This record gives sequence, C-alpha cells and structure tokens, in this order.
Amino acid sequence: MQPPLAAIDATHQSPVENGMNATHALLRQHRTIRKFTDQALEDECIEAAVQSAQHAASSSNVQAYCCLRIRDSRRRAKLAELCGEQTQVERAPAFFIICGDQRRHRLIAEQCGRNYAANLETFLVSSVDASLFAQNLVLALESLGLGTCYIGGLRNRLPEVDTLLDLPTDVFPFYGLCAGHPAEQPSQRPRLPLPAVLFDDCYPSDEDMLKQIAAYDQISAEYYKERGQPGFNWSGGTSAKFRKPTRVHLAEYYQHKGANLL
Amino acid sequence: MQPPLAAIDATHQSPVENGMNATHALLRQHRTIRKFTDQALEDECIEAAVQSAQHAASSSNVQAYCCLRIRDSRRRAKLAELCGEQTQVERAPAFFIICGDQRRHRLIAEQCGRNYAANLETFLVSSVDASLFAQNLVLALESLGLGTCYIGGLRNRLPEVDTLLDLPTDVFPFYGLCAGHPAEQPSQRPRLPLPAVLFDDCYPSDEDMLKQIAAYDQISAEYYKERGQPGFNWSGGTSAKFRKPTRVHLAEYYQHKGANLL
Repeated sequence: MQPPLAAIDATHQSPVENGMNATHALLRQHRTIRKFTDQALEDECIEAAVQSAQHAASSSNVQAYCCLRIRDSRRRAKLAELCGEQTQVERAPAFFIICGDQRRHRLIAEQCGRNYAANLETFLVSSVDASLFAQNLVLALESLGLGTCYIGGLRNRLPEVDTLLDLPTDVFPFYGLCAGHPAEQPSQRPRLPLPAVLFDDCYPSDEDMLKQIAAYDQISAEYYKERGQPGFNWSGGTSAKFRKPTRVHLAEYYQHKGANLL
Repeated sequence: MQPPLAAIDATHQSPVENGMNATHALLRQHRTIRKFTDQALEDECIEAAVQSAQHAASSSNVQAYCCLRIRDSRRRAKLAELCGEQTQVERAPAFFIICGDQRRHRLIAEQCGRNYAANLETFLVSSVDASLFAQNLVLALESLGLGTCYIGGLRNRLPEVDTLLDLPTDVFPFYGLCAGHPAEQPSQRPRLPLPAVLFDDCYPSDEDMLKQIAAYDQISAEYYKERGQPGFNWSGGTSAKFRKPTRVHLAEYYQHKGANLL
C-alpha cells in the first residue's frame, strides 16, 4: 500500500535539527538511492509529484521539457543495459526519462505558419527548464519518503536509446530518473566547502580555489577511506574522470534530432 | 529583522490543502517575484540556503557549478541594464549569478599533470548540475518565506557581463537569480496539462499533442484575458517568441570561455 500524500512529509525522514526548517532538512537528507523495495508506486502519487514539479520556473513559460515514464519491462531491461548495466533502471518501481522538448514549439510554429529558430539558446533553455522540473520532481518524491537516482548513463548510448523508444525529432533525452521506496540508506558524500562554491562579486584566485580544494580533498579522502577506498580523493577521482572525452556522440546525436548548437 | 531559520516553513505560506504535504504545497505555491521589500537578507540565511542547495545530486559528484553573489551596487546597476532594464536585478536584497564551472576541474587536472577534455557532455553536465543546485536554492529560500526570480536576461549581453565581473575562463554564466522578501503576490501562470508533459513509454502523436495544446491555449487565453491581454494565448505568444533566433552570441561566447560544444 502506498502511503497517501497527506500521511508523511519531510519531517518524518529527518528530524528538524539545529533550527533548520523541514524543507532545509529534506534538502540536506538527499542521498542517491539505487536499491528499492518491490512496493509499486501508485499512478496517483506519480501524477501528483509531476504536477507539483511543473510549478518550477520556466524561461518565459516555454516549458521546454517532457517526462517519459517507461513502464514496458522489455524496454526497461534494455535501457538498464544501455545505461551501463545499471540494474536499478530495470528494477526501480518507476523509471523516468527527462527530456528537453522543442517539439511542441516546432508544432505550434508550423500551425501558426511561423519559422521556428533553434540555436544554442533554445537548447540551453531546454536543459535548464528540464532540470528545474526534474529537481522539483525529486523533492516531491523524496517528501513522500521515496528515494531517487539520476541516471546520467542514459547518455552513454543515446542513438540506441532513441531507437528503442522511437523518439521523434526535437525531443532531447538528457538523463534518467529512478524512483521507489528505499531499501538502503547510504552515507552522504561530502560536498565542496561553501567558499569553493559561493563567492562575493568576484571569482576567487586560483591559489584560493586550490586551497579550498585541498581542504575538500582531505574530507573526501576520509569519506572514501571509510568506504574501503584508501588513497582516493575528489581531485584524483575527478581529474581522472575528465582525462579523456566521454560520450563523444552527444553533439552529433542532438543535432541529428533537431538541436542547433550554434 | 530576518526571521530565524526555525521560525517559519512552507506551511505558513500555503495551507496544506487537499491532502497535499507541506513540500508539495511549497512547490505549488511558486510564483516569480519581481518586487521586494527593502528588508535585507542576513548572510547566515543565504549561506544556510546555499549549503542546503549543495545537497542536490551532481553527476559523479563533479559539482560543475558555482554561485556568484553580487553585492557591489555599481555592478548591480549595470547588470540590471545588461539584463534588459530589469530593475529587480538592482533592487532585490540579494542577486546571484548561477554558473557552470569547469574551472575547478581544469585546475585539478593541471595540478595532477593530466589533460582536461571539455566537450558537449561536460558543458551539458555543467548546465544540469547548476540547475539542480539552483532549484534547490530557490526552494530553500522560498521555504523561508522569500521570493525569487530567475533572470534569463543575463544571457542578453554576456560578453559585457563577463567584462563587468572579470570572469575567468571555464566559468559559464547561465542565469541570474533575485531573492528577497516579497512585496507582491502575483497570480500563477497555468502550466501545460499533465498529458502534454508526462507520457507512458512513447512520445504522443502530433495530433494528440496538438489537442492538448489547444486545451491549454483556452486556459492560457483566460489567464491573459484576466490580465488585460485579450486574444493572447500560449501558442501565439510562444511561437512568436521563437520566430527569430535570440542571444545568437551564446555559442561563440561560451566557446571563447573554454566550452567545447562538439
């Protein structure tokens, strides 16, 4: 049985501590959840969460996003493979694909006999609109006691994802999102120190930034050590990740689907 | 006097109605606020909101974003002009610029003697990471009774914004964000109907989508009529907006700053 929307809230997950209100407590308890119980999510719950999420700001109200819910089990199994053997994509009670959407805009332009001018601005707006919506959706779900997991691995093999889902032009799949009742409570990864993220008026000097990163490396090294990865820290892991270009097909794929990156 | 973090929460803004929990109520009460009282925001409040926002998911924890708070009044006045004479940019008690940030990644790569490979993937990750953070920040602020306004107009004249703020390479300003105590309570713009946004397994046919848009046009026409714009609807306004390309300098600007859009 799905708990009704009214029954639970952020406060049941994280006690309100240190003078923090329930929303801040909800934001601060976020973890990536990859293991879920078998309990299904009711359609009513998902629809309420999506409708709450739609209240996110949107550039000039263009609402340049859409959300595919993948229910078909064959497609889910194939998507799990395409996303890099991420079993939660198949097993999560709900799996969404968050997309930029300029298709509606193209359709109404055609209907009005107008040109539709795609450029980097419209592509960027679609990624921003989609992500403001997606983060609202995550919080709407988490406030109901559910866990979530963004799936950037959706971009590993987009042309195959596209064929599998028979996506039309002008729809840009950005990432997946798993949701369900958590069957794990992983520890939280520490974030960059505030002075490495929030600046007054000017971006800091390289020297100051590297000092902040050095402090964070110590914190992250502790975290990885506790999780059986001694000698690992944020700088080492992150710089290794960016050594070689990844997902090199993205520009060609999105342009093939109607994006203009100029 | 700033209310302390504990004193208020979402529930004081929107009564919990129709079985909706406080988080859903907070999401659903969102409005763009452009008029603010003179009451300042305490640093403690802003820092707590940014720290809560940093808990947003980040692709492989790369945290490819940063947040500039613009305090200098001369810069605020100039930014208001550059954003299209948006006076709230100058007058809001707080004004932030939300940026993609690959500079930290470039710095740690140099420090480790590694290559840093920018491509469309890293640019897209920066826009997604920045926007998940920004939406968390908006909700953290709104939960304290504050109002916010995203400023996409920041992209109108980015090279001048860049010079004004002396931004380094590898930092990509995406949009601004005003915050303060609301001095207005505007009506909410209706959003697209759920069946135009959430789909099961397949993107809908053009015919089905156009039916949904037609229904939405009626709703939006009512909204605009009530606000003194009879004859205006979503399709008309949105298709007019996209007729000609806007902000055509974006690709050149971001590439000049170190982005690779290929």
